[in-house]
Amino acid sequence: MSSLSMALGAPIVFTDPQIEMAHGAGGKATRRLVEGLLVPAFGGPLVEALNDAAVLEVNGGRLAVTTDSFVVRPLRFPGGSIGELAVNGTVNDLAVSAAAPLAMLVTLVIEAGLPGSVLTDEIVALAAAAERAGIPVVGGDTKVVEHGKADGLYITTTGIGTVDPRVRCSARAVRPGDRILLSGRIGDHGIAVLLARADIDLDAPDLCSDTRPIWPMVRALIDAVSASVHWMRDPTRGGVATSLAELARDAELGVTLFEDRLPVRDEVRGACELLGLDVLHIANEGQFLAVVAPDVADTAVAAVRSVPGGESALIVGEVREGPSGLVVAANGYGGSRVVDMLVGDPLPRIC
Amino acid sequence: MSSLSMALGAPIVFTDPQIEMAHGAGGKATRRLVEGLLVPAFGGPLVEALNDAAVLEVNGGRLAVTTDSFVVRPLRFPGGSIGELAVNGTVNDLAVSAAAPLAMLVTLVIEAGLPGSVLTDEIVALAAAAERAGIPVVGGDTKVVEHGKADGLYITTTGIGTVDPRVRCSARAVRPGDRILLSGRIGDHGIAVLLARADIDLDAPDLCSDTRPIWPMVRALIDAVSASVHWMRDPTRGGVATSLAELARDAELGVTLFEDRLPVRDEVRGACELLGLDVLHIANEGQFLAVVAPDVADTAVAAVRSVPGGESALIVGEVREGPSGLVVAANGYGGSRVVDMLVGDPLPRIC
Repeated sequence: MSSLSMALGAPIVFTDPQIEMAHGAGGKATRRLVEGLLVPAFGGPLVEALNDAAVLEVNGGRLAVTTDSFVVRPLRFPGGSIGELAVNGTVNDLAVSAAAPLAMLVTLVIEAGLPGSVLTDEIVALAAAAERAGIPVVGGDTKVVEHGKADGLYITTTGIGTVDPRVRCSARAVRPGDRILLSGRIGDHGIAVLLARADIDLDAPDLCSDTRPIWPMVRALIDAVSASVHWMRDPTRGGVATSLAELARDAELGVTLFEDRLPVRDEVRGACELLGLDVLHIANEGQFLAVVAPDVADTAVAAVRSVPGGESALIVGEVREGPSGLVVAANGYGGSRVVDMLVGDPLPRIC
Repeated sequence: MSSLSMALGAPIVFTDPQIEMAHGAGGKATRRLVEGLLVPAFGGPLVEALNDAAVLEVNGGRLAVTTDSFVVRPLRFPGGSIGELAVNGTVNDLAVSAAAPLAMLVTLVIEAGLPGSVLTDEIVALAAAAERAGIPVVGGDTKVVEHGKADGLYITTTGIGTVDPRVRCSARAVRPGDRILLSGRIGDHGIAVLLARADIDLDAPDLCSDTRPIWPMVRALIDAVSASVHWMRDPTRGGVATSLAELARDAELGVTLFEDRLPVRDEVRGACELLGLDVLHIANEGQFLAVVAPDVADTAVAAVRSVPGGESALIVGEVREGPSGLVVAANGYGGSRVVDMLVGDPLPRIC
């Protein structure tokens, strides 16, 4: 069936009367929008690319392509800014597709009245992040909208990368017994941005976003265990919980998370308790999750730890036969709870 | 010199105190922003890709990649809508790079409060346009911003295409004596969108945007004269004048435009006169300009005319030794005037 006839003929089940902030949060409302409207309209290939990157076969090789719009508020926050985030977010989507960075395209939607110095700072941050990530910016576009029709600056980046031929990650490659590797501390980005908005009076002077390119860590992992990497994801919007819930659903297996092993800063844990948030739902911008075969788990952890910034990588869970489609967080006291994907939007515009 | 050291070390000459609408208009202010800030920050490759698409060598073939953000107001206008425009604008940038459509990525920035039906209509329009243009949508992203932080819906599309190996277009390939082919009537898109805003009381019930994919016409042209196509451009923001002014500047040659040959609707001409606009500055979304060798000019015109929608293609000008860098419009009475690129922004947000 063509994508057009699907668009016109299939029942589009997205019937929400209006768009709410939750539709952009990466959780259930987003999935309703994506699976109820976008996937039926655009047809098959998009289904594969709901997260991270799509893969194109080009002249016998595989190219990963991915695109994201960045609308983070405020434009600058401890540890980063929208320009840096726009590069890292996109190269990280390539990385978890096992793709080395090849080229990037950038568009800007600028609100009239934005100080020229603010724009200059973000372009310099973007260029520096691209340099650090090793990805040339080869093209772009600029649009300006009237004052009041944007919020300073929105940036859209598209990344193109070459997929490592040794790896074929997918939820279908995941097996019971596989281990779940996490690259480091979680929750820093979302909470750092939240506190930067200054509408919450919490003191955490050392808390910074973790925005950074993860490709050096992913490359080390692939070099070490190659085809034994079965699945990767960067837990951004919706956090670790949403990424693992999607894994459990797509693999039709169970995921057990050893909750007491999760590395979380005290300030992040404190902010989450105060605000009634689950740190598993908080966005990260410099971490990744990888599912690896059990026999290579130690090698995988050692490989990621060998890369600067990856020193605290560890195994945080494992894949089990069931309960199918569910993520169960087990704590150190023998208790457990079911972890669901994000529903509402406690932290809008964190990327 | 690395792009980072260029960003940090080179004198960035963009010193405008704040962003104005004119920075998005595609004319001189845009060039100041692009050449004074973006090109120095990002380094070499971007220079080649200031317009239309960048070309990547991948596994022995050439891929064209291009990205654009669409912020047209209103979302729907006679003859099209933002969803359709976002597809055609991007596949047309591929087309003038002699690239057949391969894959598209789409991001949405949606203002909270947008009716679900409006979004659904644009997704259906986007899918239909992609189907018509023969380009699959393989991935994307959705962000939602608060009410008052966007204007309904902004769409960013990225197009990837395979470059026809028979063609190597560039301003450096253009020679004195070359002819300038135009695919059809100009000015329809910009004026149709302007009138759709309803702040101007002009009656033009038949006037529609010309938004459409131009690849079928371009493909016919390439099939007919292949390497004798020296340069192509779709005259969108900034219009025919800006495209040809860039040609004259980049080729370091003169361009003579036979102004009385230009096909322009009476309603468009009337609106331009009333509003003090030059039709050569008005955006088009379904036309292209091609520079062809003089000996194939008739063949080139016949090829484009053979494609439905290309029936009114014609030669509208020629390249001359000089005056170098200038576009001179010659009228039928022996008079002439210098045509410059767009300076201000008479028509903001027309794409």
